[in-house]
Amino acid sequence: MSIEQQKLGFTLSDTRISEALKLIQEVGDLEAIRAMMDWDQQTGMPHGAGAVRGDQVATLQGLIHERWTDSRLGQLLQELAPIVQQPEYSDADRGLVRTSLRAYEQATKLPRAFVEELERGLVLAHEAWVKARRDNDFAGYAPVLERMIGYYREMADYYGYKDNRYDALLDIYEPGLTVQQVDELFEPVKEVSTSLLKRIQQSGKTVDTSFLTGEYGKDQQRDLCAVLLNNIGYDFERGWLAISAHPFTLSVGAPFDVRLTTRYDRYMPTSIMAALHEGGHGLYEQGTSPAFVRTPLANGASLGVHESQSRLWENAIGRSAAFWQAQYHHIQEAFPAFRDIDVKTFVRALNNVESSLIRVEADEVTYNLHIVIRYELEKALINGELSVNELPQAWNDKYRSYLGIVPDSDANGVLQDVHWTFGMGYFPTYTLGNVYGAQIYATLRREFPDFDARVAGGDTSFVLNWLRDHLYVHGVTYLPRDLIERVTGEAPNTEYFKKYITEKVNKVYGF
Amino acid sequence: MSIEQQKLGFTLSDTRISEALKLIQEVGDLEAIRAMMDWDQQTGMPHGAGAVRGDQVATLQGLIHERWTDSRLGQLLQELAPIVQQPEYSDADRGLVRTSLRAYEQATKLPRAFVEELERGLVLAHEAWVKARRDNDFAGYAPVLERMIGYYREMADYYGYKDNRYDALLDIYEPGLTVQQVDELFEPVKEVSTSLLKRIQQSGKTVDTSFLTGEYGKDQQRDLCAVLLNNIGYDFERGWLAISAHPFTLSVGAPFDVRLTTRYDRYMPTSIMAALHEGGHGLYEQGTSPAFVRTPLANGASLGVHESQSRLWENAIGRSAAFWQAQYHHIQEAFPAFRDIDVKTFVRALNNVESSLIRVEADEVTYNLHIVIRYELEKALINGELSVNELPQAWNDKYRSYLGIVPDSDANGVLQDVHWTFGMGYFPTYTLGNVYGAQIYATLRREFPDFDARVAGGDTSFVLNWLRDHLYVHGVTYLPRDLIERVTGEAPNTEYFKKYITEKVNKVYGF
Repeated sequence: MSIEQQKLGFTLSDTRISEALKLIQEVGDLEAIRAMMDWDQQTGMPHGAGAVRGDQVATLQGLIHERWTDSRLGQLLQELAPIVQQPEYSDADRGLVRTSLRAYEQATKLPRAFVEELERGLVLAHEAWVKARRDNDFAGYAPVLERMIGYYREMADYYGYKDNRYDALLDIYEPGLTVQQVDELFEPVKEVSTSLLKRIQQSGKTVDTSFLTGEYGKDQQRDLCAVLLNNIGYDFERGWLAISAHPFTLSVGAPFDVRLTTRYDRYMPTSIMAALHEGGHGLYEQGTSPAFVRTPLANGASLGVHESQSRLWENAIGRSAAFWQAQYHHIQEAFPAFRDIDVKTFVRALNNVESSLIRVEADEVTYNLHIVIRYELEKALINGELSVNELPQAWNDKYRSYLGIVPDSDANGVLQDVHWTFGMGYFPTYTLGNVYGAQIYATLRREFPDFDARVAGGDTSFVLNWLRDHLYVHGVTYLPRDLIERVTGEAPNTEYFKKYITEKVNKVYGF
Repeated sequence: MSIEQQKLGFTLSDTRISEALKLIQEVGDLEAIRAMMDWDQQTGMPHGAGAVRGDQVATLQGLIHERWTDSRLGQLLQELAPIVQQPEYSDADRGLVRTSLRAYEQATKLPRAFVEELERGLVLAHEAWVKARRDNDFAGYAPVLERMIGYYREMADYYGYKDNRYDALLDIYEPGLTVQQVDELFEPVKEVSTSLLKRIQQSGKTVDTSFLTGEYGKDQQRDLCAVLLNNIGYDFERGWLAISAHPFTLSVGAPFDVRLTTRYDRYMPTSIMAALHEGGHGLYEQGTSPAFVRTPLANGASLGVHESQSRLWENAIGRSAAFWQAQYHHIQEAFPAFRDIDVKTFVRALNNVESSLIRVEADEVTYNLHIVIRYELEKALINGELSVNELPQAWNDKYRSYLGIVPDSDANGVLQDVHWTFGMGYFPTYTLGNVYGAQIYATLRREFPDFDARVAGGDTSFVLNWLRDHLYVHGVTYLPRDLIERVTGEAPNTEYFKKYITEKVNKVYGF
């Protein structure tokens, strides 16, 4: 057995590890089943099943909670915690104990009564948000948001933190991440994004994107998505492409069952870029070590690292001239209207930069500004530096200042995202993903000097193989910052994103 | 509250009932989730997920078994067993205690070691059967079947029986059913079926069915199935129509989530008749009382009663001239080739009778002969009156004697059905369904003297409403024979099937 293989395997000869693993695998099965219920719900569950499904989910969640708080599991994990520092244990052992202990602690730190109150609160908050956005009624939503912020603060206090209460929330989605780190990483991103946007706006240059919108058949879009996913190496033997209102990737037992969805729109790139984005998430989880199946290690290292891969395949590769040089004919075959559009015009349109109000429709330059705004606001809310009543005005002020536009309504402003109805601390991982993604992309281009030529020749398998070997296979074994350093040779560094986005803008706009 | 409503509700003021109900509902949730996993597996689960899915199913099954054998639940049910005979309790209470006690006893009567051995055996038996059928190799399958029969005998001994070991197996699928009852019901069915078949064969009359096979588009067939299902009252707000290799109906929380599938074939009626058949099962479960959700009462009373409803909607209604008088234009609109075929010719073709080797493709006359053959053989196998080595010859002899044809191979003979890889005692419920179905259909026609006229006018809602009120709403509250008597006013009686099938043959063949 090679050293690399040893690192990927568990030390089953230690009976504490094998006993813990058995318990962990069973709760892993239940969590996979829970994921399948989500898949089912979002891809076709009858509307009338809502109430009974609620009961079924509650019963299963209760069992999962029971299993994660099992005292025997806790005892085993606490015994193993110091021991796996010893060199004779594998990185996989360490990862297993770390992630399982984290799950055990997350499940035990929150009092049962708080969890139940929170869960009821989340359901009501979601309903209130849907209604408030529909009616453009922030005042109606304000007391609900106020209460949710109270819960998030309380949750932060249960979990604990050193410097900043918001650190405890960041840590839920990105283990180890702190406000200090985010501030350091986001400042340069904010700078480069605002300055590029200003430059584009001042140049008066625009990009024609009109041909991207039209009556493009759903079946053809579906087939096109499947072809592109297949071409980037998504394995349909272990995957499933379906349709849902909001695209997502979901594992029902990674790496053997990793599913994704896309959606259709008159703006044709919606479906294919969503497929490539979710495809990036899918390649990551399909690439985790088979030894990790049924454990918490068979996942992305964090939301930020996960997003780095969806962004890399969607944007760095999926919006590149090289990629479309090989793939564009599929679009032209599916849609005759594109036969009069050359690939350069198509790629340019895919990379159009334009201030807009809606985050999910934003381009690569403005996207991070949408995130920075949300991060700054929720950090201030959690730390009591901003009140809910002041929020809509603060939101609009930041949009004016960073993007040069002001929402025409709260529905298109402060009420646009669902996220605050289920948590705070999540948004920063999106921009973190862009930063990590650019850094990993730069590493890849350094490793493969003929990167563009190979991609333009229709080959992306060398990219997938390298990412599998260096990143995907490890799953959640390493902490996100350690993993980025392992893969790229240095700590997270925004220089790569700055360089990437500046070069792209210069190319598209001819600066 | 009316008397009828009281009968449908549980007596929650008895804390033993409310406590038992809570435990039963939780295991009901887990069983619904188990059903969802089957749905997922048969409608699109990636092939590569097989192994991890096996682990997930095993974990969930273990929990379900744990819950059904919970000693507190057993204690409550045993306390309740005599008490619910008292008149102040409702029929729903009695049904709940009876079905739950049955599930508890079924779960506790089989030793854990036997269940585990059996489960491994079932997996191996299925694999061996697939291989044997593919290779037309009965000899290779014989030792496996021998072992399975050993398991079924052992299972019968654990469950217990009075007169005939096979009674214990019948009871699994049709509570209370005995060999004596089956023999009494099947003899007249065998007689009428063989004599009608002989008469048709001797008449030399044939029916043209050639136009039913051709290149009929899948999408159109799918839409047609959805229209027909909608027209018979299947509720898509609480349902889902999908595609699978073998059509089935499955509840993920009846009556609020009852799904079904169909399949496509060049023989066009395959998809629509399967949809009407599964639709009948679906109407039944969608019609169970909402009060029964999450309990074992939200189901059909037995496999036989369930099949009576699929057969009633598929055959008695779905192959009738009256039904197609109203619905045929949908077929003509979907497939222009049918515009030259009149509805009479179409209905006649749907009712063609012809000896064939394959049970699942059989018409209404020969179908029961396929079942009788299987019933007679498996009863003899279980009781040691026939050996596995003698089985292929016995099979062929019976086909010659009852259907006048002999299988060209064991693959199309004794190896054609999957059933013996998962149990024995199941087949008789199919013919039982035809007998019950004809009796209920006769009751309906007596209740509604203008039955044909209303159906021909496009209305079947009066049928559905009557069946809901008299049959569907009760779910598993009553034992099957009691239920049939309640609904039709008399004990199961084959005269109705004899009359129904004779009239149909006379009409189609002009006798």
